[in-house]
Amino acid sequence: MAQNVQATANNIKYPLGLTNWRVIGSSMRNDNNTQRVILGNSIAIKAGRANTAKTQWPDGAILAKLVWKNTTLETWKAATVLGDFVHAEIMVRDTTKYATTGGWGFARWKGLDLNPHSQDINAATACFECHKAASNNNYVFTVPAKMP
Amino acid sequence: MAQNVQATANNIKYPLGLTNWRVIGSSMRNDNNTQRVILGNSIAIKAGRANTAKTQWPDGAILAKLVWKNTTLETWKAATVLGDFVHAEIMVRDTTKYATTGGWGFARWKGLDLNPHSQDINAATACFECHKAASNNNYVFTVPAKMP
Repeated sequence: MAQNVQATANNIKYPLGLTNWRVIGSSMRNDNNTQRVILGNSIAIKAGRANTAKTQWPDGAILAKLVWKNTTLETWKAATVLGDFVHAEIMVRDTTKYATTGGWGFARWKGLDLNPHSQDINAATACFECHKAASNNNYVFTVPAKMP
Repeated sequence: MAQNVQATANNIKYPLGLTNWRVIGSSMRNDNNTQRVILGNSIAIKAGRANTAKTQWPDGAILAKLVWKNTTLETWKAATVLGDFVHAEIMVRDTTKYATTGGWGFARWKGLDLNPHSQDINAATACFECHKAASNNNYVFTVPAKMP
């Protein structure tokens, strides 16, 4: 497990133990050949599994995406599975602190060593610009999976 | 969370709290238009995250697959995400009890109500027949994801 991970330039800390969080969903991005698992901290899991039509994420919720390059499974060629690890990224819900970016603080760490994505304190602006496409869903792309 | 789930015909019980297990990987099956998240119980997680070249799954390990139909994300059309829930399936490692099926007991429950896949005690034979394609990997298709 990654240790001593550096905070991002916008001062968001990597949540230790993130890979032990529970699942909210998964997705495949056909535009950049990656697959991702979306996890949540306890607050996010409680909100995401409440079976509401549109999830309301309370302050303190953190959503995480673990992203891998796609690869083909040797033993089942019709399956696309997880190849090289690309990055971990999180959205931290704080409607006061991050009021100018939809109530979310954005952070990304690259590679298995989890190096901060950028040294630019404004790097997260790019995240928010992209997430505006999900403005009708509280700036969250992920729709929590239906769970048994 | 599903309650009072019926055991399968081959007498495998649904592990309560399965959806709270940690992640081993995810995959997309292009032959049947589904996406799946692979989880493990504590024994499986310890084995699957040991960074060995080929995972040795000890007795007591349980691997679970949660399977959903693919759908397109409204807010990002190039993303394929989780639609309707299809089924949950598990592999239970017991090299003595399941010696004739590669050391694994197979079970599947369908839909959000988690109804046993079949009333036929031999239904799991079909699972094993298919998993023979992964005989060089202890009959497990999943290769644990590289985790930071």
